[in-house]
Amino acid sequence: MSEKVVLAFSGGLDTSYCAIYLSKEKDLEVHTAIANTGGFSPEELTDIEKRAYALGVKSHKALDVTEEYYQKGIKYMVYGNVLRNNTYPISVSSERIFQAIAIIEYAKKIGAKYVAHGSTGAGNDQIRFDLAFQVLAPEIEIITPTRDMELTREFEINYLKDHGVKADYNKMTYSINAGLWGTSIGGKETLTSNQTLPEEAYPSQLKKEGEETLTLDFVKGQLKGVNGNKHFSTIDAIREVEEIGSAWAVGRDMHIGDTIIGIKGRVGFEAAAPMLIIKAHQMLEKHTLTKWQQYWKDQLGNWYGMFLHEAMYLEPVMRDIEKFLESTQENVTGKVIIKLRPYTFQLVGIESEHDLMKSEFGEYGEMNKGWTADDAKGFTKILGNQLKIFYSVNKK
Amino acid sequence: MSEKVVLAFSGGLDTSYCAIYLSKEKDLEVHTAIANTGGFSPEELTDIEKRAYALGVKSHKALDVTEEYYQKGIKYMVYGNVLRNNTYPISVSSERIFQAIAIIEYAKKIGAKYVAHGSTGAGNDQIRFDLAFQVLAPEIEIITPTRDMELTREFEINYLKDHGVKADYNKMTYSINAGLWGTSIGGKETLTSNQTLPEEAYPSQLKKEGEETLTLDFVKGQLKGVNGNKHFSTIDAIREVEEIGSAWAVGRDMHIGDTIIGIKGRVGFEAAAPMLIIKAHQMLEKHTLTKWQQYWKDQLGNWYGMFLHEAMYLEPVMRDIEKFLESTQENVTGKVIIKLRPYTFQLVGIESEHDLMKSEFGEYGEMNKGWTADDAKGFTKILGNQLKIFYSVNKK
Amino acid sequence: MSEKVVLAFSGGLDTSYCAIYLSKEKDLEVHTAIANTGGFSPEELTDIEKRAYALGVKSHKALDVTEEYYQKGIKYMVYGNVLRNNTYPISVSSERIFQAIAIIEYAKKIGAKYVAHGSTGAGNDQIRFDLAFQVLAPEIEIITPTRDMELTREFEINYLKDHGVKADYNKMTYSINAGLWGTSIGGKETLTSNQTLPEEAYPSQLKKEGEETLTLDFVKGQLKGVNGNKHFSTIDAIREVEEIGSAWAVGRDMHIGDTIIGIKGRVGFEAAAPMLIIKAHQMLEKHTLTKWQQYWKDQLGNWYGMFLHEAMYLEPVMRDIEKFLESTQENVTGKVIIKLRPYTFQLVGIESEHDLMKSEFGEYGEMNKGWTADDAKGFTKILGNQLKIFYSVNKK
Amino acid sequence: MSEKVVLAFSGGLDTSYCAIYLSKEKDLEVHTAIANTGGFSPEELTDIEKRAYALGVKSHKALDVTEEYYQKGIKYMVYGNVLRNNTYPISVSSERIFQAIAIIEYAKKIGAKYVAHGSTGAGNDQIRFDLAFQVLAPEIEIITPTRDMELTREFEINYLKDHGVKADYNKMTYSINAGLWGTSIGGKETLTSNQTLPEEAYPSQLKKEGEETLTLDFVKGQLKGVNGNKHFSTIDAIREVEEIGSAWAVGRDMHIGDTIIGIKGRVGFEAAAPMLIIKAHQMLEKHTLTKWQQYWKDQLGNWYGMFLHEAMYLEPVMRDIEKFLESTQENVTGKVIIKLRPYTFQLVGIESEHDLMKSEFGEYGEMNKGWTADDAKGFTKILGNQLKIFYSVNKK
Repeated sequence: MSEKVVLAFSGGLDTSYCAIYLSKEKDLEVHTAIANTGGFSPEELTDIEKRAYALGVKSHKALDVTEEYYQKGIKYMVYGNVLRNNTYPISVSSERIFQAIAIIEYAKKIGAKYVAHGSTGAGNDQIRFDLAFQVLAPEIEIITPTRDMELTREFEINYLKDHGVKADYNKMTYSINAGLWGTSIGGKETLTSNQTLPEEAYPSQLKKEGEETLTLDFVKGQLKGVNGNKHFSTIDAIREVEEIGSAWAVGRDMHIGDTIIGIKGRVGFEAAAPMLIIKAHQMLEKHTLTKWQQYWKDQLGNWYGMFLHEAMYLEPVMRDIEKFLESTQENVTGKVIIKLRPYTFQLVGIESEHDLMKSEFGEYGEMNKGWTADDAKGFTKILGNQLKIFYSVNKK
Repeated sequence: MSEKVVLAFSGGLDTSYCAIYLSKEKDLEVHTAIANTGGFSPEELTDIEKRAYALGVKSHKALDVTEEYYQKGIKYMVYGNVLRNNTYPISVSSERIFQAIAIIEYAKKIGAKYVAHGSTGAGNDQIRFDLAFQVLAPEIEIITPTRDMELTREFEINYLKDHGVKADYNKMTYSINAGLWGTSIGGKETLTSNQTLPEEAYPSQLKKEGEETLTLDFVKGQLKGVNGNKHFSTIDAIREVEEIGSAWAVGRDMHIGDTIIGIKGRVGFEAAAPMLIIKAHQMLEKHTLTKWQQYWKDQLGNWYGMFLHEAMYLEPVMRDIEKFLESTQENVTGKVIIKLRPYTFQLVGIESEHDLMKSEFGEYGEMNKGWTADDAKGFTKILGNQLKIFYSVNKK
Repeated sequence: MSEKVVLAFSGGLDTSYCAIYLSKEKDLEVHTAIANTGGFSPEELTDIEKRAYALGVKSHKALDVTEEYYQKGIKYMVYGNVLRNNTYPISVSSERIFQAIAIIEYAKKIGAKYVAHGSTGAGNDQIRFDLAFQVLAPEIEIITPTRDMELTREFEINYLKDHGVKADYNKMTYSINAGLWGTSIGGKETLTSNQTLPEEAYPSQLKKEGEETLTLDFVKGQLKGVNGNKHFSTIDAIREVEEIGSAWAVGRDMHIGDTIIGIKGRVGFEAAAPMLIIKAHQMLEKHTLTKWQQYWKDQLGNWYGMFLHEAMYLEPVMRDIEKFLESTQENVTGKVIIKLRPYTFQLVGIESEHDLMKSEFGEYGEMNKGWTADDAKGFTKILGNQLKIFYSVNKK
Repeated sequence: MSEKVVLAFSGGLDTSYCAIYLSKEKDLEVHTAIANTGGFSPEELTDIEKRAYALGVKSHKALDVTEEYYQKGIKYMVYGNVLRNNTYPISVSSERIFQAIAIIEYAKKIGAKYVAHGSTGAGNDQIRFDLAFQVLAPEIEIITPTRDMELTREFEINYLKDHGVKADYNKMTYSINAGLWGTSIGGKETLTSNQTLPEEAYPSQLKKEGEETLTLDFVKGQLKGVNGNKHFSTIDAIREVEEIGSAWAVGRDMHIGDTIIGIKGRVGFEAAAPMLIIKAHQMLEKHTLTKWQQYWKDQLGNWYGMFLHEAMYLEPVMRDIEKFLESTQENVTGKVIIKLRPYTFQLVGIESEHDLMKSEFGEYGEMNKGWTADDAKGFTKILGNQLKIFYSVNKK
């Protein structure tokens, strides 16, 4: 009897090739699985399932981890205002770890001896998958035909034809990955340093003109309302914001980043919802958190994003950082008002019971409520003490 | 014979009141001085001088510290990509320290026993002035009539009239401060949390439509060319970028920050040149610096901006950070291409001999040049070692 | 009827003066209170109470906050391995905030209109008390006769005599403050930069010679056993360690630090228990935490210590840091073996089920279990990718 | 004609085996080289040279990089007070990179096609050598017979005998590496978690009793005098301090650290000079640097040590950090007084013209010179502003 292998299956050329290869050449019992983190519609999942069975797999399973992705990933990325390199909401790459965890748990559950994925040896995904698999199931062996054999598209297509599979595997100009937390777009211009993606490369096109107001309601750091409508889960809220924002073509940009393997890479993205939510959330924090809460959130949020991006989600320090970030959200509750314009948006303001700008102790530009001129003079005198001493001692 | 006082003079109501008050009530010999960090035109300086002599001052001096402001302030803010709270290029407040230094040096030079400024007790500027004055000339006493007496505008205007001064001191809806590194706008909406400035509050208005390409040339981190024209100083280059960018109404935003005295404050700004230059510079760095250079630049640049904002420019750690930042700019040379649109801009790409994306060792998406599939597998295996051990030791 | 004042009372000269002064000169109803954070014995507390009533106070209250000090302060200092400036366990100053909180809560409870303390204007304690009082009860006014009037010892002693108080208030060479987390010693040599305290200035004297083994047991970061004896609270355990360690004269040192008001200050301390516990705890963490957990604990623990020292305990970021630190302690369980010698100690080793040195994946010096030579070569090749690219692109 | 290989040669069993192997099995022209970073005496170098020629090598070269090691490594480790994990002065591992650079430069100079070293696949050294070799000479191929073949000692000894080499290669209980910046000791107890090295495992033995005073003179952060004698280079000074300190058996400890490959490792060390110099230097800094200089030096010094330890010395951020650290040393000039005791030492105090404790502006415990009680009250009031607002807005 053949040993079981679980193949992380997308329905694309590489994993289709793997499905046949693992069965025919490796004599394994192939169980395909797809971990959906919110990027696939029911129709797409059905289509992928059909493709899997057309390849003759023993079983196919769609694992829904959207809620898990939100609760264990997106939530903390919002708490931490995570924008890699000040730009990129880690749109698709942040899904990989949750997909990897779902796949390996499934492999353990059905008693597979092997797990396979279709990542190449050039990028970050191979590391995200390998590392999670090894850490969570060191006893399960990893197989990666695409990486190991460095096959051409032509070879794979011919191999599939030879085995009676006749699906279309068109080479697109751009490689597009859509997910709950944004869409990434690679190809052509992203392989240069001096060009940007043309308008038509983006899945969403500008459909509006003039201006539109959008309001987002946060409760303890989580998005819980859009334009006053409070009756949905945060996942639904993200989808609604994405629909509104993408019509204005906002949240598009190019990420130039350092891959885990040390080379620089460029990727375009459109991520209207992540950009709107994070920027709104951050402005609400500017009103509700103290200076030093913001300072340390920046440090830890930045690190959290780096490790999430770099396959280190399972590092225990990530759990520690999550506790910190969660603690900071206690008062991050309120409404954020945003003005949408073509290709851009403006943060108008916020309303919150926890707004530190409003207090009985004094507001900006008004002195008398909280302190006197003499207080300010005394403050400055003592604030400058060490500098006065330093310059006095070290004067030339 | 009266003692000398140097009054930091802007020609506005508060410092005009101070000029009369220090002479008439305090019996001091008043020497006004204005430190120009690039925000005043020759005409404005002449007008201010006339106002000073109309108030009967003994002497008036315009101190030009534009070059100093660039060389000792703006340059490092660009190196450090300084945006306070991820937003604000510290447009006007960063000038204060260089003005304070120029004023106190002038006071020492002419043998003044006192130095005076017109800041109120409510904001940051009083601390910036007091602290620099005390540190650099502890022997010179500081006088601040506006802060100490908390006078109303009406009282000051009447007092000036009583002393024969009949200038216009209109109360504007918005208090506007223009400088080399941007313009700040305060008033009305900035005193709320939920409103933003109307279009007409901004000094510059949108004058363009469609798109326009702008290129910026950097040499070791400093802007040395605009649209291919390389024949001017960086200060001139900043002015040219400001003129180009402000016609597109870019670089506008609202800063919500923590004042030195602990309260939250909001201020609008338009700073087309700072935003374009910093964002372009930062993208050039993403291509030319290593991951860890960027990581530490973020930490130190952020702190540099905080201390510059918070009156701590004279802290010796600032000199140490400047050395660090300067060292990082060795290879930050190249051209950045930008697309301008109404209210927003897009970073198109860069061209640089130091671009780390281009190398003989492998480019994004291509594996074979630099390493093999086995190298990547070995890398991941060892990268995950500590996590594998951790989960193995601590498994439930 | 007179208004109530709560006076933080130590029984010393300054606060004795205050008790009379507040009653006689200010016509207030004086209620003294002492907040015991574990530094006072029952006998001392009884003595202080007698002194209070001898001064004619309306009531006296001893508030026991030892448990609170441990649970909300010391516990996190151990989690964070807090040694200010790499040296000082913040021995006495960390008690102040918990004393201040107890005093102000008591003042609110009995409806006092005023609260008084005896700190001078020269040091940190005034800021710790004022700040906590103002934040937790902005409606209660603070009175500080000692600070405001800058009285001499002679004046205070004579004033007390004039009011019939005849206690001994001897001026000691050294000012000694004993607490649960160590004893601080100031005076004479600590006012110089180049001398250290003589042997006899320390309350505890060396009583042992040779060597002695000490074992400490930690459970999730908290000390729960000493020399195998597990039957006491952590507070009792701290006291036992202090008794053992102080006989070896360990944990003595001199702290040179920056006061909140910006000047440098020196203080001697003996803190056998804090030093032994923190160093042992830290070594246990080196075996049980990952590299990056340790890295971030260092950052946050250091900041926690700084803010605790600098009167900022109530900053909400401190609560966020506490959550982080607590999360890191999940596996910090085990035994630490220490060798005591005169004036010093040596950390021998640890035993823990969570020891990451022991695993099936490979131990130091042994390669074959976890990876191959080729894995190590692949790891290094990819680890060096960015540097290879950098030097290749930027070669001269 | 055979191709040239440069073999990093220590005279030990592994590299002796390599010398024969590379010549006989690989048919290469073997040129041995040893890079001396100060750990070898002239006698040892002569002995190593003899061993090399006895193995039939074509040439042997001793490269003296002691000065380079000091100027480019130790100097910055002192500036940064580098103690890995708060304990370890990175005694021997910090030499590796300078040895690697010297070897590879030599290989380039003589036109070698290959470079070889004897590190195993288990530790950090292989990564330090490989990475430096690859980065500085990607065109030179690396050969590592010991790592690749995983040979036993017996096999190597027999192989050498078969080729007529009859040297003694005794297996010692402890593996000892002596260098300018300390000696590391591994074996037996260091492979456990709960035992420490016995007295006799240390090369230096306690030879003194009672106490002895030692003074160290620093000029801009560099050690320039010992016990008043100022007539030698810093390298000589380090050697003198080592001789004095090791007679007191100070600077011994055990490092438990994370290796580059992710496993925990333990190593004993004796490093009297590094510990005395770093601790003295740090105390001098406490008196001469501002609080924030110390804060950022801690961050950057810690990172510098980590990267130096982890084979990342060539990262350009290291050059940037060096500029920062150098800038901080401007005023770190003065004398440090130390009291030596068996197994431990006490920092007595410092004398410096740059001592910030001594100033006309006020000393610890004295208020009147620099500020008034009202200044302190005003300072505290404003320092607490944000907290007062926070608690007022968020009160339950």
